[in-house]
Amino acid sequence: MKSSTPPSSDNASHPSLSDSNAIIQALGSGKNKRVRKLLARMHPGKIAALLELLDTEQRLKLWQQTGPELEERTLHHLGPTLRAQLAGDSAEAMTPHDETDSAPSSQLEAVRQALAQGKLKRLGKVLHRMHPAKVAGLLEALPPVERHHAWSMVETERAGKVLTYLHDEIRTALARELDPEDLIAATAELELDDRVDLIQALPAELGNQLLHASSTAQRQQLESMLSYPEDSAGGLMNADPIQVRADVTASAVLRYLRLLERLPPQTDLLMVVDRKGHYQGALRLSELVTAELEQRVSELMHHDIAGILVTTSGNQVAQLFQDHDLLSAPVVDEHNRLLGRITVDDVIDLIREDSDRALMHMAGLNDEADIFAPVLVSSRRRAVWLGINLLTAFSAAWVIGLFQATLEQLVALAVLMPIVASMGGIAGSQTLTLVIRGLALGQVQKGNIRILLNRELGISILNGLLWSVVIALLSVWWFGNWGIGAVLGAAILLNLLCAALAGWAIPLILDRMGIDPALAGSVILTTVTDVVGFFAFLGLATVLLL
Amino acid sequence: MKSSTPPSSDNASHPSLSDSNAIIQALGSGKNKRVRKLLARMHPGKIAALLELLDTEQRLKLWQQTGPELEERTLHHLGPTLRAQLAGDSAEAMTPHDETDSAPSSQLEAVRQALAQGKLKRLGKVLHRMHPAKVAGLLEALPPVERHHAWSMVETERAGKVLTYLHDEIRTALARELDPEDLIAATAELELDDRVDLIQALPAELGNQLLHASSTAQRQQLESMLSYPEDSAGGLMNADPIQVRADVTASAVLRYLRLLERLPPQTDLLMVVDRKGHYQGALRLSELVTAELEQRVSELMHHDIAGILVTTSGNQVAQLFQDHDLLSAPVVDEHNRLLGRITVDDVIDLIREDSDRALMHMAGLNDEADIFAPVLVSSRRRAVWLGINLLTAFSAAWVIGLFQATLEQLVALAVLMPIVASMGGIAGSQTLTLVIRGLALGQVQKGNIRILLNRELGISILNGLLWSVVIALLSVWWFGNWGIGAVLGAAILLNLLCAALAGWAIPLILDRMGIDPALAGSVILTTVTDVVGFFAFLGLATVLLL
Repeated sequence: MKSSTPPSSDNASHPSLSDSNAIIQALGSGKNKRVRKLLARMHPGKIAALLELLDTEQRLKLWQQTGPELEERTLHHLGPTLRAQLAGDSAEAMTPHDETDSAPSSQLEAVRQALAQGKLKRLGKVLHRMHPAKVAGLLEALPPVERHHAWSMVETERAGKVLTYLHDEIRTALARELDPEDLIAATAELELDDRVDLIQALPAELGNQLLHASSTAQRQQLESMLSYPEDSAGGLMNADPIQVRADVTASAVLRYLRLLERLPPQTDLLMVVDRKGHYQGALRLSELVTAELEQRVSELMHHDIAGILVTTSGNQVAQLFQDHDLLSAPVVDEHNRLLGRITVDDVIDLIREDSDRALMHMAGLNDEADIFAPVLVSSRRRAVWLGINLLTAFSAAWVIGLFQATLEQLVALAVLMPIVASMGGIAGSQTLTLVIRGLALGQVQKGNIRILLNRELGISILNGLLWSVVIALLSVWWFGNWGIGAVLGAAILLNLLCAALAGWAIPLILDRMGIDPALAGSVILTTVTDVVGFFAFLGLATVLLL
Repeated sequence: MKSSTPPSSDNASHPSLSDSNAIIQALGSGKNKRVRKLLARMHPGKIAALLELLDTEQRLKLWQQTGPELEERTLHHLGPTLRAQLAGDSAEAMTPHDETDSAPSSQLEAVRQALAQGKLKRLGKVLHRMHPAKVAGLLEALPPVERHHAWSMVETERAGKVLTYLHDEIRTALARELDPEDLIAATAELELDDRVDLIQALPAELGNQLLHASSTAQRQQLESMLSYPEDSAGGLMNADPIQVRADVTASAVLRYLRLLERLPPQTDLLMVVDRKGHYQGALRLSELVTAELEQRVSELMHHDIAGILVTTSGNQVAQLFQDHDLLSAPVVDEHNRLLGRITVDDVIDLIREDSDRALMHMAGLNDEADIFAPVLVSSRRRAVWLGINLLTAFSAAWVIGLFQATLEQLVALAVLMPIVASMGGIAGSQTLTLVIRGLALGQVQKGNIRILLNRELGISILNGLLWSVVIALLSVWWFGNWGIGAVLGAAILLNLLCAALAGWAIPLILDRMGIDPALAGSVILTTVTDVVGFFAFLGLATVLLL
């Protein structure tokens, strides 16, 4: 049904060449946002002319980018065949997707199906109905090419909010896909702390553009917030606390709030400051509304809601929020001057990220990475981890290599030796995980680490005795050799003891060295349990059995 | 300095025998709370008589339990020697602990030092100054005997709050250490949701006692809350929402709130309900205070703050709070009647517990267990895990056993074979962790699992090629045998492919079977990578090299 008119000679009546070319170029590179922007400033007649000019595939792509009201007006300018065809396409997009023949079972599938069929209009509608957090989740669950297309269908005014819910790697990538002016527009309505996060995640140049697009007052605030580490009270805070004086009455505060018309999101506290901006205490909104109107702020405020020093680590902030069930908290500088406030939503993100990080680091993975990153990129990242672990594997092999003569004489040793290493590894990783988590939660401290060691050693002796006897008997039954059984049992007992010691000591040492125990702990532990396990088993066998 | 008077004959002037005996018995079993209760109803003169009656050790123990005002009055009744001695002891307890000779470097050490020296008065003061959450953290960091003593020094009125911050196992144990009447007194002031948690954690009998000690109205609420699973919206909710009607004005609502005098903690929303209790929407406190006084609730309320169905899973509740940055949310039944509200502090606990659980389950540990549980108890728990892993180890050994003849001829194979299994295990655990986390975060769904598999296979091919060549060359250099190198490389490539497939499939299958992939995933994966690794390496060697 190739009905596209060949380029005619009366080019003058056609859309300005530059616009058409720009649109065709943008269509080709999937920059749908730019296409929509260009279309918005064209006359419907010119759009119709352009539609007739394009081949079927490009025409449908362009049609997917015309909004509802533009669509209507453009249809009038089209020839009857094309009009019927495109109008039909639009009507189909209107039907809810669960009525189509192959109803997708989930939102993700619905989106992927719409993408596969090029039904970008329908996709745009689905995305429009979703909460920004859900859109972010969906984008993360899409492979890069589809993600790129879906992202291009997110309205600019919602794109900023979506960015704040994404993990670092994907956030940076998608922010860079936007034209700088769109990025600025998308982030104009964001809270300052979200904007700070974004600026920190972007390449310096783009981040600077964002910074300079802000109003002077905001830029100063942003710059001061950017001066604190991302993972500190300063990096977490927002510069929007409502401030009141201690000597005014509740009724005056209520009048002041009505003048403000709108409080910042998640406001549960008003901050009480003196004339010089020193933080004095906080007034709960829930107590302000129940107070007698003539009561003074000084009678109502809480002096025990302490200001968090701006340099406090994110970890400590999270602990404070959890311990005191805080919804928000004031942030102060070293002179107790109020700088801003931290809200619980950012703390929740921090907590989730922290625990996520431990889990991912245990497997040598980066928690902020895109799980659909290009295969080559992911391969390179994981190759490093495999390479590090190869050192472990080769040190184990080297130990075995020392006992080749023994193995030649008693091949049963080769059969049984993985059991020694495996039991040690499992037992050690239990101690390791316990200590890593205990350090994170504060259950393990200088004051009780020795008790913990004694317990872990006790447990490993009991379990070592139990399982070394069981395994020794099994191996005697298997190979009919009491000597092998005895050596095997002894090696397992020894290895479990070393595993407990190593699982206890490694995270403490790494922690003191400032290395994340979750990241490096298990590699080092496995090296220890492999080397000790093989050495003990083959060494004892060489001495006692040959 | 044994100056204790022997029991004299004028027993009549002594404290009633039953009280003294009860105190001596309570002292002996470390029930300090009971000691303090008994002391409180005795005359200071009788306390003095009892003090003189006891031997030095018991006397000091008893002295540690007399409160400041009782202390003063008891001193008057004592003989001069004893008075000087005990008064000196008290004065020492008053000095801040950082002035003593061996200043402890942390709170934990200070507490343990006080416990070791029997300075329970000082300990009581330290605990009194700490936030209940910190007390809970401290108790968790103490070994059981010291924990028991420290717990006995927590005031009854604070003990309830402390219990809510503890992990399940320790919470249950410490709640049972309290006398039932103390437990009831301690929990009387708790919010209902915290009381529900506690009742669920206690043995049925004790839980029932707690339930029946509540007022009738509270008991009905508690019973209805107890009827929902702990990990659901019903189990998380509190039955204390403030309810208002849609047709009243802001000023009427404010008047109503002032009548209430006090709002429940963490109130940021007022729930709008109709005459029959159907939930209609929510009014933000922060918008109520900025509204014009004559505006009606119907104009101010948000219809888009949806009620959470009471049967919603905890996981989904957490996701809702995170996605929408909620501080609290209404809970409704299937007829949309308002039942209660969930506050963000409970959601934070849920989030932390969830991530904690994944980390601990990966190592076969229970996240709610006491890390200072008796060695025998912990050993038994871990023994199960080691036993399960033994199956893995023996299946690997069994595979090697199939190739004993091969190993006898080429002992170099025994040296290199752990490398194959190790590389497979590492690569597989990366895929496994990625999928487990992806499932938890919703990044991995039915709609994209195949793409993920393709990526993981792609990564394993690239890394397999890279590392199999490296390892093959290293082994050729080591053993000077090209055949062994080739077989080793091929086996590693094969094992990495299987590892990716297994790491991808295992969590999906377990998830569908309703088994926590974090708990069982790594054992099954290791079995696969060990068996495949050894089989591929030794099998190829048997076919190609002999």
